[in-house]
Amino acid sequence: MTMNQAKGLILKLNCPDQQGIVAKIASYVAGHSGNLVEFAQFSDSLGGKFFARLEIDTSSLDVEIQDFIEGFGTLGRSLRADWHFRVLPYRMRTAVLVTKTDHCLNEILWRAQMGELPVEITSIIGNRTNCMDLAKRYAIPFHHIEMDGSKRENGFHEIHSLLQQEKVELTVLARFMQILPDWFCSEYQGRLINIHHSFLPAFIGANPYRQAYERGVKLIGATCHYVTSDLDAGPIIEQEVERVQHFHSPSDLARLGRNCERNALARGIRFHVHDRTIIDGNRAIVFPD
Amino acid sequence: MTMNQAKGLILKLNCPDQQGIVAKIASYVAGHSGNLVEFAQFSDSLGGKFFARLEIDTSSLDVEIQDFIEGFGTLGRSLRADWHFRVLPYRMRTAVLVTKTDHCLNEILWRAQMGELPVEITSIIGNRTNCMDLAKRYAIPFHHIEMDGSKRENGFHEIHSLLQQEKVELTVLARFMQILPDWFCSEYQGRLINIHHSFLPAFIGANPYRQAYERGVKLIGATCHYVTSDLDAGPIIEQEVERVQHFHSPSDLARLGRNCERNALARGIRFHVHDRTIIDGNRAIVFPD
Amino acid sequence: MTMNQAKGLILKLNCPDQQGIVAKIASYVAGHSGNLVEFAQFSDSLGGKFFARLEIDTSSLDVEIQDFIEGFGTLGRSLRADWHFRVLPYRMRTAVLVTKTDHCLNEILWRAQMGELPVEITSIIGNRTNCMDLAKRYAIPFHHIEMDGSKRENGFHEIHSLLQQEKVELTVLARFMQILPDWFCSEYQGRLINIHHSFLPAFIGANPYRQAYERGVKLIGATCHYVTSDLDAGPIIEQEVERVQHFHSPSDLARLGRNCERNALARGIRFHVHDRTIIDGNRAIVFPD
Amino acid sequence: MTMNQAKGLILKLNCPDQQGIVAKIASYVAGHSGNLVEFAQFSDSLGGKFFARLEIDTSSLDVEIQDFIEGFGTLGRSLRADWHFRVLPYRMRTAVLVTKTDHCLNEILWRAQMGELPVEITSIIGNRTNCMDLAKRYAIPFHHIEMDGSKRENGFHEIHSLLQQEKVELTVLARFMQILPDWFCSEYQGRLINIHHSFLPAFIGANPYRQAYERGVKLIGATCHYVTSDLDAGPIIEQEVERVQHFHSPSDLARLGRNCERNALARGIRFHVHDRTIIDGNRAIVFPD
Repeated sequence: MTMNQAKGLILKLNCPDQQGIVAKIASYVAGHSGNLVEFAQFSDSLGGKFFARLEIDTSSLDVEIQDFIEGFGTLGRSLRADWHFRVLPYRMRTAVLVTKTDHCLNEILWRAQMGELPVEITSIIGNRTNCMDLAKRYAIPFHHIEMDGSKRENGFHEIHSLLQQEKVELTVLARFMQILPDWFCSEYQGRLINIHHSFLPAFIGANPYRQAYERGVKLIGATCHYVTSDLDAGPIIEQEVERVQHFHSPSDLARLGRNCERNALARGIRFHVHDRTIIDGNRAIVFPD
Repeated sequence: MTMNQAKGLILKLNCPDQQGIVAKIASYVAGHSGNLVEFAQFSDSLGGKFFARLEIDTSSLDVEIQDFIEGFGTLGRSLRADWHFRVLPYRMRTAVLVTKTDHCLNEILWRAQMGELPVEITSIIGNRTNCMDLAKRYAIPFHHIEMDGSKRENGFHEIHSLLQQEKVELTVLARFMQILPDWFCSEYQGRLINIHHSFLPAFIGANPYRQAYERGVKLIGATCHYVTSDLDAGPIIEQEVERVQHFHSPSDLARLGRNCERNALARGIRFHVHDRTIIDGNRAIVFPD
Repeated sequence: MTMNQAKGLILKLNCPDQQGIVAKIASYVAGHSGNLVEFAQFSDSLGGKFFARLEIDTSSLDVEIQDFIEGFGTLGRSLRADWHFRVLPYRMRTAVLVTKTDHCLNEILWRAQMGELPVEITSIIGNRTNCMDLAKRYAIPFHHIEMDGSKRENGFHEIHSLLQQEKVELTVLARFMQILPDWFCSEYQGRLINIHHSFLPAFIGANPYRQAYERGVKLIGATCHYVTSDLDAGPIIEQEVERVQHFHSPSDLARLGRNCERNALARGIRFHVHDRTIIDGNRAIVFPD
Repeated sequence: MTMNQAKGLILKLNCPDQQGIVAKIASYVAGHSGNLVEFAQFSDSLGGKFFARLEIDTSSLDVEIQDFIEGFGTLGRSLRADWHFRVLPYRMRTAVLVTKTDHCLNEILWRAQMGELPVEITSIIGNRTNCMDLAKRYAIPFHHIEMDGSKRENGFHEIHSLLQQEKVELTVLARFMQILPDWFCSEYQGRLINIHHSFLPAFIGANPYRQAYERGVKLIGATCHYVTSDLDAGPIIEQEVERVQHFHSPSDLARLGRNCERNALARGIRFHVHDRTIIDGNRAIVFPD
């Protein structure tokens, strides 16, 4: 619904719920001649929290954008809020981690080029070289980092260095088949997105399509989620399903599932980059577009 | 997401878009110690209009509810808005018009009893008697009004009298197979909901499942919409589809379509009764729950 | 696709896969001037088994139906098959077990009356009396059987007697909130269908909507399955999902889930009664219509 | 469900319906020690026709494949059938026609490379050069053929020559924005697939997303169909929909619709190439996998 590449500002915020928050925030914006393009909010009566995402057209602001952002601090602190501003237009520096399969990577590269994902792919990192050709086609640097056996721990440190060096803001696990060390999950918490090839929490762990086949399910799915140190248990951003039948073999399920994976991951990344997600414990508030 | 049967207030509003509307409205609410449960809004940049729906917890209001409602008029007029308040809890007085088939009626009756639809069914009106038994089961008055041939025009006047007499607020055409006279459509504009058994604007008019069969479509659907004098062209509230295959006969399509019809109609009524719809010309803004 | 209430015959069969099975079966039918309305089959290359369902128009058979059925035995035994014939028209004697909620029961009753489900509801059995009124509306005998605490084991024996006495062929657990004893599951294996209010195998056990809320899933679902002694692990017949968002409370999930439950259960029953399901270990082969 | 790249044979057939067809065909296969991997059939009782698709494992045939194919002629003629054999493995020579947008082309190229579509892309033909880079990335010849104004008729002759020369079996219009001349539609009837960016028959013709926006629909879609000289009215192979809301602008609809287009087109091509479609007048019989 929004053209995030237009000039403007996104404000993402959460705080304890109380009376008058919307009025206070909207008044601050209006008080400086900002124009609300979108104001999505959610008062979680069960959790007692307030969540909001504002998109502000700043073309008629009566102060500099930076001044507007700083001035908000007084209100933000009085609300005991966590908040974040993002100046538009914006393209998020993103690294993609892969192993062998390339369908998720292909989807990201194509959507980025198309303008559907406002990301700048800084690097593609693989513990196998299968995706190297695809990276070349899009002229993105490919880094092969070996992670087998004893090289694993060192490999993650190498990845970490690379992400630091390239000032990566978002790391996407696009069917990256390695279990991450806890320190890595902690370091990148909230900035690390995975696609799991099942409809979580069903079929956690390895080979979910085989598990789905054996259980004889009639729908398969994929789950895009933030990574936490608890395997496949992080906050869910997006899920997608596809109907299947008894005649679909595990490899058919994998084929049909690829579509779920691609779409759920692409939408999940889009929501994250557009600041449409707010992590709340083990759940993700998502204001979709 | 909402328990409309709780004590509170819904405000539905639309006005020309301008800076600061959200701030003004939210400030009015907060200024009288109202608590925003939900504030859905939409700035239509293409049409230059602003639409909003607020749900307000009034338990801590500093004035009487009626006073709060009246006091809003000053702001509403200054915004050149159309607005509407509804005091909760509320059950909308609703009449259902039917002919032969009863699946939509059954759905409405059951959901009303269940509490999913906050309506009070005042009467069921049929130009056939097929649904009389179902009405009896739920102890709702059934009115048989003959409309064949020359009795049609008179029949609509009879319906009109009945709706007036029973102070009906919403009239639902639950597979009512009669073309409505223009005066009736005008009289009940915005308070008259129909379910059309196709995915509009495909297959306008009679026998859409037969049309769908002959066209060989792979998905069929149903459309819940406000009735205007232009047949099947009123603002769409909700649509639903179902996948079909070549082996489905027209009667299979009708069977599968019944499910689409029931669901689209029930959701459409729910959105209307909860004031989640705002008609904007030929389109309906819908804030779903 | 089929009018099972027409005169005819359904043949359901499974056997070890080998060359020429389709030819043999179809030749037997054609050899006696039977007309194949439908011949669905599945060669499971992974399991080495063959499954089929035939619908035969018997109006031009050159022998009596009973003779045709008996004559098939020679072929069936030579294929080392399990097979089953059903003479159409047919309405399956069905009992429905309930506790408090009535949405699944209402769906079954309405679809049965409508002709969408070729069942004859012999009895509704509840361990609570909440569904008694609904049973009365449809003039179906309601049996209240107490099952609390120490009465549970005895209650199941009472149910068993009732099912025997009324020659029930299919027992449906329509949100029956009691864990079944093993002997009951064994006794009714393949004739006992449950609706579980989650997208199995996610959220096995109690209160799945609460579990789904806490996990923050973006899709909820329902699963219709055959009951085995292993809780919620029997062969899946049908599944259904619905998209949800962060603002949906557990009770919203329950409301949205009711729709999934009703539809998955109704389709599952239809498939079973029309002999469109074949149980294969922990999976169900389903030839949908 | 099938690995069409395995050795084997597909038989596609349609004929007037009569008793014993399945028996005769299956007996022919079994009589020569062919093994049926799949036998999908449909007796159209409304149209009095029989349609079938067989997939035959030929590894144990007692004659040469060519002999088996020729021998079938006697049976085929006696059934007054149209039939077609295809020897597996097979990759269909396919040309893709494009204009500016490349999402459908990208999907086809990627799925072909992935092995999901058994096609060999012989050439990409564009009346604009926008897709030239993408063609290069996949090392497929790109032909720029000008078609503006008076060059249009000549352009189609040029395309025709190219398709002949390259022995193209399937031509895909992947968002090719030119109206085809009648002679071209006739020439390539049954071998020419289009993706229309609406849920046909709604929004025929130009700018369907704009039309959908103005009509205020709640679901948009895409339709993959065989091209006939009657614009957007050919047999439908596959359709796909996506839910939309009031806040989606026409360009949002276009973005969301791209996904529908890509998927519907890719599935439609797959069904065609795997011989899973049979055209029957204005409808397409589709045996999906």
